[in-house]
Amino acid sequence: MKLYEQLQEALVKRIEQGYYPVGSKLPSIRSLSKEREVSISTVQEAYLRLEENGLVEVRPKSGYYVKSRGEAPELPEVSRPAQRPLEVSHWEQVYHLLNSAKGSGHIALGTASPEINTPTLKPLLKALTHSAGLQSEQFLNYSEIQGSEKLRKQIARLASDSGCKLHHDDIIITSGCQEALVCSLRATTKPGDVVATDSPSFYGSTQAIKALGLKAMEIPTHPETGISLEALELALEQWPIAAIQVTPTCNNPLGYTMPESRKKELLRLAQQYDIPIIEDDIYGDLFYKSPRPRTIKSFDDEGRVLLCSSFSKTIAYGLRLGWVAPGQCTERVLHKKFVSTVSNPPVQQEAVAEFIAKGFYERHLRKVRAQYHHSRDMMIDLVRRYFPEGTRMSYPEGGYLLWVEFPVAVDSIKLNKRLEAKKVSIAPGVIFSASGKYRNFVRLSFSKKPTEETEGALKAIGDEAKKLIADA
Amino acid sequence: MKLYEQLQEALVKRIEQGYYPVGSKLPSIRSLSKEREVSISTVQEAYLRLEENGLVEVRPKSGYYVKSRGEAPELPEVSRPAQRPLEVSHWEQVYHLLNSAKGSGHIALGTASPEINTPTLKPLLKALTHSAGLQSEQFLNYSEIQGSEKLRKQIARLASDSGCKLHHDDIIITSGCQEALVCSLRATTKPGDVVATDSPSFYGSTQAIKALGLKAMEIPTHPETGISLEALELALEQWPIAAIQVTPTCNNPLGYTMPESRKKELLRLAQQYDIPIIEDDIYGDLFYKSPRPRTIKSFDDEGRVLLCSSFSKTIAYGLRLGWVAPGQCTERVLHKKFVSTVSNPPVQQEAVAEFIAKGFYERHLRKVRAQYHHSRDMMIDLVRRYFPEGTRMSYPEGGYLLWVEFPVAVDSIKLNKRLEAKKVSIAPGVIFSASGKYRNFVRLSFSKKPTEETEGALKAIGDEAKKLIADA
Repeated sequence: MKLYEQLQEALVKRIEQGYYPVGSKLPSIRSLSKEREVSISTVQEAYLRLEENGLVEVRPKSGYYVKSRGEAPELPEVSRPAQRPLEVSHWEQVYHLLNSAKGSGHIALGTASPEINTPTLKPLLKALTHSAGLQSEQFLNYSEIQGSEKLRKQIARLASDSGCKLHHDDIIITSGCQEALVCSLRATTKPGDVVATDSPSFYGSTQAIKALGLKAMEIPTHPETGISLEALELALEQWPIAAIQVTPTCNNPLGYTMPESRKKELLRLAQQYDIPIIEDDIYGDLFYKSPRPRTIKSFDDEGRVLLCSSFSKTIAYGLRLGWVAPGQCTERVLHKKFVSTVSNPPVQQEAVAEFIAKGFYERHLRKVRAQYHHSRDMMIDLVRRYFPEGTRMSYPEGGYLLWVEFPVAVDSIKLNKRLEAKKVSIAPGVIFSASGKYRNFVRLSFSKKPTEETEGALKAIGDEAKKLIADA
Repeated sequence: MKLYEQLQEALVKRIEQGYYPVGSKLPSIRSLSKEREVSISTVQEAYLRLEENGLVEVRPKSGYYVKSRGEAPELPEVSRPAQRPLEVSHWEQVYHLLNSAKGSGHIALGTASPEINTPTLKPLLKALTHSAGLQSEQFLNYSEIQGSEKLRKQIARLASDSGCKLHHDDIIITSGCQEALVCSLRATTKPGDVVATDSPSFYGSTQAIKALGLKAMEIPTHPETGISLEALELALEQWPIAAIQVTPTCNNPLGYTMPESRKKELLRLAQQYDIPIIEDDIYGDLFYKSPRPRTIKSFDDEGRVLLCSSFSKTIAYGLRLGWVAPGQCTERVLHKKFVSTVSNPPVQQEAVAEFIAKGFYERHLRKVRAQYHHSRDMMIDLVRRYFPEGTRMSYPEGGYLLWVEFPVAVDSIKLNKRLEAKKVSIAPGVIFSASGKYRNFVRLSFSKKPTEETEGALKAIGDEAKKLIADA
């Protein structure tokens, strides 16, 4: 551990133990440097990290202060989806969501695109422009099914941050995480099979379950610790489950991260029943604190976990650049990838490989993690202020999604319809379930730092929700 | 019809009727202008088109001469694939082919990438560089499932060249033609179904048939007129065929174009048995003569045909940009596209839309069509010179693929293995069949103008083939 990391850890402990209470001023850089016998720059680095993690804030010409972190909101209850395998529907709602961002002046709080207006992405544009201008075999014609070796090497290097030892030949580049997920499902199941999923669950994977003729077995999920292992074990005993599909780190839509012990336990269950785990880690790099959590894959030494991710949520959606480390299933996933799209455009692969190799990705992550962390607290404050009494919400530990539970009278599809005239949209809860649950839930994105406009939109949502309650 | 087109047509007739025999000099531009009472530039334009179509050649400081077109080679026989639905295999061979282009100095005659070293692609690189540098919602974040409207409008406009009246909302952009084909198959079949295909057939679609748990019913195919309608009708009576998948224009690997009458007859059969046709038109724009042939889709007024294409063979493979006009199946194909990869990167879509809108695509087509036409004759000459006696080959009317039938003693997988040491590779025939037929066939690409190196490679192939015959 580096010096500034040791110092950072010591300061976190002091803050958590109340030694430095909320609102108090931290020691000056100079005095702390003296006290700990470390250099000025070490203290500066440690303070910078604390700021990025949202624990302290700078007050100009004054110093560093311990930030109010706000109280955790009242969380939604453990989900109770239907206790049998189900066919997935609600494509119309998904389609509507994905087409809702059209037109200027529209505030689309439902779609989960990252912040792209940040100077930390400038080097990416430079790299993209450069690789787009290369008229060589490599860029216009040739591309490997597995994807660019240069990019796979960078991904393998990054994977060590989540505890994974990957070789670049363990990795296949895909057209976004969606292709990674669907190729993984195809490689591990056949039509008619049952797939166990956390619930609520990302609509892209539930729609894939539908399209592949599979059935979804939705498992109750705790808003802080994730998929219920007890319920999962019961389901594994009762149903012929072919694969487990989960998003255990910075979950979409709930924002939780499963504790390591539960990740290990989930892997043990999969071993016991000899089935694969498809692990969606797309938001994992956006965990607010450092180091980021370990993946289930990192505990897996037999190639049972198919780890899926992408740069759509951490860099930019329009890159359409994802990847999968399929373990034992590598050969099969490669065939599915070939059949699906053959290979990816080289331009984006080269640009992102450059962006990572030169350290710009990590710099960008530090910046957006801090921003999303800060926006989370602002968003929760606004929801508390404007949404009807009895509203509950998640307390995300990473990413930029908030899962909001309204009182039961609020039908979020009706709510969305009413909001159309006000040019505001949300993601309705039903699309996160195979069984049409979560009618009174919505998912909101806070990837854009809340502004007055956002406040207006949230007030509009709250007002319409209150009307729906009054009408009930 | 424009003036120069009228003149061009008149000249073609004279050449075909032997009025201007091979090797003869055409009238000077000035004298023809006088004779026909048209402007100098009209004659120039007509001669330019004749040159592009490979009918005449310029001899510097002398004038235009009627070109030797070479005789048509002896064609392969009508294919006789197995007469029952089969599961597809030979993925290992496909994988080997797609990875054979590695390393410098290697002459990969098996892969079907277009010529990209042409000045007519410069405007594309400019457009790519421009769109890659745009940091806007549209370019880094947002993209529609259907794909860029701007690009779809250009595709709809181009489709009129093949007789299709398409609205841009009839079109869905895909990750290459492969995704168009596989989404079309998914939308029209369910696992266990039988799909009728021409044979030999593109390995990407046969591998898709395999991956989707379908069976391939290979129909005998004539090297000039395409899929045997008689055999197809028999198969339709005998087997529960769910869809017909064909490449009727500039076929891969055979190079033929089905006559219009047979295209119409194929559509009539599909109507009679009420099944969809998946029409792969990926090489259609590379037909050597102008205007390009009509698609089956152009005769279809009930939305029965799913027309699939891409810019991978006409512009550059690395764009990974294809499209599908799925007719009645548009909604279903859209869901498959969402599940498969959600959407395409906007950068390439914008660049190609610009490239087409400004007329650069048509200019580029004129150039490469003439080049491929010329290369075909050179390639056929070389194959005649170096390959063993009894070798037959196709006589492509468009594209840049030659299908070669060796005497039966030549096993093309063995041949490919022996060629490894000489850094030459071919596409072995077996991958173009579900039933492992065509062992003594190879597919060769002539997208690169044959050079001395190509000649060396073809001599090496011929020598090894002769050794295999001697060993037998």
